[in-house]
Amino acid sequence: MPTEFDIIDRLRKRALVDDHVLLGIGDDAAVIKGSGGRDLVACCDLMIEGVHFRTEWISPGQLGRKALAVNLSDIAAMGGVPKYAMLSIAFPRWCTTDFLDDFFDGIFQLAQTNGVSVIGGDTSSSPDSMFIDISLIGECDSGKAVGRRGAQVGDLVYVSGSLGASALGLSLLEDGFRLNEDHDLRDPRRQAVDKHLAPEPRLQLGRVLASEQLVTAMIDISDGLSSDLWHILDESSVGAMLSASSIPIAECVKSIAAVQPEIDPVSLALNGGEEYELLFTARPENQQRVMSAAKTLNAQITPIGYIVEDKGLNLEHNGIIDSIRPLGYQHLL
Amino acid sequence: MPTEFDIIDRLRKRALVDDHVLLGIGDDAAVIKGSGGRDLVACCDLMIEGVHFRTEWISPGQLGRKALAVNLSDIAAMGGVPKYAMLSIAFPRWCTTDFLDDFFDGIFQLAQTNGVSVIGGDTSSSPDSMFIDISLIGECDSGKAVGRRGAQVGDLVYVSGSLGASALGLSLLEDGFRLNEDHDLRDPRRQAVDKHLAPEPRLQLGRVLASEQLVTAMIDISDGLSSDLWHILDESSVGAMLSASSIPIAECVKSIAAVQPEIDPVSLALNGGEEYELLFTARPENQQRVMSAAKTLNAQITPIGYIVEDKGLNLEHNGIIDSIRPLGYQHLL
Repeated sequence: MPTEFDIIDRLRKRALVDDHVLLGIGDDAAVIKGSGGRDLVACCDLMIEGVHFRTEWISPGQLGRKALAVNLSDIAAMGGVPKYAMLSIAFPRWCTTDFLDDFFDGIFQLAQTNGVSVIGGDTSSSPDSMFIDISLIGECDSGKAVGRRGAQVGDLVYVSGSLGASALGLSLLEDGFRLNEDHDLRDPRRQAVDKHLAPEPRLQLGRVLASEQLVTAMIDISDGLSSDLWHILDESSVGAMLSASSIPIAECVKSIAAVQPEIDPVSLALNGGEEYELLFTARPENQQRVMSAAKTLNAQITPIGYIVEDKGLNLEHNGIIDSIRPLGYQHLL
Repeated sequence: MPTEFDIIDRLRKRALVDDHVLLGIGDDAAVIKGSGGRDLVACCDLMIEGVHFRTEWISPGQLGRKALAVNLSDIAAMGGVPKYAMLSIAFPRWCTTDFLDDFFDGIFQLAQTNGVSVIGGDTSSSPDSMFIDISLIGECDSGKAVGRRGAQVGDLVYVSGSLGASALGLSLLEDGFRLNEDHDLRDPRRQAVDKHLAPEPRLQLGRVLASEQLVTAMIDISDGLSSDLWHILDESSVGAMLSASSIPIAECVKSIAAVQPEIDPVSLALNGGEEYELLFTARPENQQRVMSAAKTLNAQITPIGYIVEDKGLNLEHNGIIDSIRPLGYQHLL
């Protein structure tokens, strides 16, 4: 069968859109021209048992929370404010009332924290896997949603937070590691697994960067830094030069790599998916304003490179420049 | 595990909604107060292989079309105009490029006919069954969306089209009947199967009834006349008296029942799901305007009973009045 990107490309070519669609298929969220100075932002995200999660790894509450968090992250990447959620969920027969209560607790707690109203959805039994699709409708100031197309030569490339932990957490889970009460918050394995299971959508940061018009393109890291930056480069018809030593590696990744030399922190940071950090570009003259906006929010952001005219993605590592391919994120299937 | 209605009830009790949510969980679609004289209408519908369809029964194009049609029907039941669709689909490995092309053809053709722009979504592989979730965003004139709560004592109960064919079509398919070139359009079995596989959402009718404020409550028949009327009665805290002889039975059902006496047309019409006809209530003094609005659209509608104060659903059949329970629609699982 065709890959996800093939399918999206085919759909994009076919989709007829009316004049109100400011951004359609192919961005983190669609943007629709609204009235009253606000545009609508809308997105949906699938989470499928056996593809995106295994129930042995994640508690029902974490699962509900994460299913909403990944959607919130898409709205964050547009600079939007999430408002309304619809939940479409197919439950296998093994789902108990306790499971459902905990699962919905996870969704509702994160929804409430972020001012999101659950307005509807659909539920069904499932013949086999659990299937979750959450749709979100949000809004942003008119014309201020940030897509992937605006990166310009000379822009700096920034990333929020630190990278590599989610992929390492996933790999720990795949290798049979399970969290228990012996793993306190300082345990780097716990930190890695927590990053994978309980990502924090960067809503405030995305919103401020967009509303102050400080960024030229923005995306959230769901497939991996290299793949997601590639989306920006491709849409903006530009290239980028990154510096490996600038990429912020999560502390827990450094700690674990220090005792497990087979782990390559830079590779994890470049190619690990499900970070849900923001990756964005901004004019170099705005660097101080960008850093100061992040500081006000107590958000960590790091410049990791810059946009160049020649297409392609290059990485400077120990004085050597390599062309890198987006390796993307491999789901379980 | 809890039933779908239990789950919806639990969610409804928990959902915090902001002042802009005019109708939340539990109607065909949610309604959000908009600006510029328009409200937003939003809904989503799951279609799951093995629960809602089997690929032996339905062509890829019909499947795509139906997945969108059932959503359009929800918007129709609110009196809304559909505008934007998001497609979340998990494809099993057996899906070929041809299958996908035909499937998306089905969606895009119906979308185009109805002025719907496909603005986004998500795709994934599926470990087993195919999952389809389509989210629709539409709009309606401010304050004119029709919910389920407004039925009043004395209102007439109407249904569009004719009933029973979809359930009979499903039962033919379950018994191994397959359409081929020998079955021309006059073949009642073909008519029944077509009604099941290719329902027609009643968008124009719903829109006119709502915009002219002719109806007090409206729903589309997805679970079955008895179940869906029950939703209106329950939400409106009223009861209804239906006349069995008034219920419009599909001609194909009558033809097939004439030679298969084990088929009970009234029972099929009362309890058969997936009709996607509109079921609505209107003040008796508006009867002429309601009939005339339908006539202008060349839409068949039939008064089948009236709303009473005493809760419960009663059916007058051959001079005998029976209390009937909503039997609802049984999905494959």
